[in-house]
Amino acid sequence: MPEVVIMKEIKGRNEEYARSNRVKYAKDHVLAVNIMGAPGAGKSSFLLALCNELGARNIKSAVIEGDLYSSIDTERFSEEGYASLQINTEGECHIDANVVRQGYDKLKFSDGVLFIENVGNLICPAEFDLGEGLRIITASVPEGDDKPYKYVPMYSYVDAVVLTKCDLIEATDFDRDNFTKGLRAVNDAPVFETSVKTAEGFKGIKEVADLIETKFRAV
Amino acid sequence: MPEVVIMKEIKGRNEEYARSNRVKYAKDHVLAVNIMGAPGAGKSSFLLALCNELGARNIKSAVIEGDLYSSIDTERFSEEGYASLQINTEGECHIDANVVRQGYDKLKFSDGVLFIENVGNLICPAEFDLGEGLRIITASVPEGDDKPYKYVPMYSYVDAVVLTKCDLIEATDFDRDNFTKGLRAVNDAPVFETSVKTAEGFKGIKEVADLIETKFRAV
Repeated sequence: MPEVVIMKEIKGRNEEYARSNRVKYAKDHVLAVNIMGAPGAGKSSFLLALCNELGARNIKSAVIEGDLYSSIDTERFSEEGYASLQINTEGECHIDANVVRQGYDKLKFSDGVLFIENVGNLICPAEFDLGEGLRIITASVPEGDDKPYKYVPMYSYVDAVVLTKCDLIEATDFDRDNFTKGLRAVNDAPVFETSVKTAEGFKGIKEVADLIETKFRAV
Repeated sequence: MPEVVIMKEIKGRNEEYARSNRVKYAKDHVLAVNIMGAPGAGKSSFLLALCNELGARNIKSAVIEGDLYSSIDTERFSEEGYASLQINTEGECHIDANVVRQGYDKLKFSDGVLFIENVGNLICPAEFDLGEGLRIITASVPEGDDKPYKYVPMYSYVDAVVLTKCDLIEATDFDRDNFTKGLRAVNDAPVFETSVKTAEGFKGIKEVADLIETKFRAV
């Protein structure tokens, strides 16, 4: 099985880079947060609101954006004045610790929170440690409440679950209990209900900011 | 670069299996349709409505369900009386022509439409030909109108685009023109606007059934 050997080599190298990233982030007083989620989960909109909330608390944010193609998301963050950098994978289904490090070194960032918005994919990113201190999945309400049952490796991998687009809970018949039951079968991570369209949803974003602030103060 | 060599080997083997599947489907008078899309795009709900519409036209359907884990979707199709079979990839990000063939041989299906619901993933499935005669992407409205700009290989790969959850166009500020502009940059495939919740949406599903009926009659 040569594929397995090669895969082990790739993963082994990734782990080395991830370890090196962890040391570098600690030196720079940076909390790195890996934001994962399906395509269209609303990662960028959530992240922008979160960065603004952290800014109001005098915590600096920088953003590394992973996408197959385009620089749509980085442009949004640049316009809002955040240090940001685009990684285009040109077809690859995830970003790895090495490519993140190359981006990080260009950003010249320190004393703040580095958000790494992963490629939209509920599968492959869960196999690549980026050296982050916190792993978040954004799960959008319209994706449906059955996803934790199907995407077990990803839902097992994360430290926190951010439900996005919660303004659509009624319109999509989203069943919170079924979602939570599926999640609890594999992970006891906290769940935050958010939306960038409602006051209630912003309350959820502030709760995520509380979690990140606590983690950052402990770096 | 040993990875590249191995990847070429895997792809080469997949192409052989895909060719063999094509011969088998032709012999069995089967149109195979590969349904791809992001997690939560509404593939199964769309597919169930489509199978019912084809049934009303006296066209038989069978379904192979690809998921990392669970048999939630296969159970739905079995309950509705369709020949169906679950493939659990246990973490793998796509299904390939060989695994589909193993499932197909168990189904013992002929003279109808075989739907292969791929793993929810907008990236990796576009690299694995399953021997299908038609490739459909289900793109859900809540995913947003920018996805053709980001997931170029997938949006280039398909023969038809099915917009799902169109009842949410207004609630999500989905911009049809921006979506179409991104799509047209890489593909001239037709776009069908569907929803399983509205009469207008069912009209779109009937139009997809028209396309499939025409293709099936020509097998």
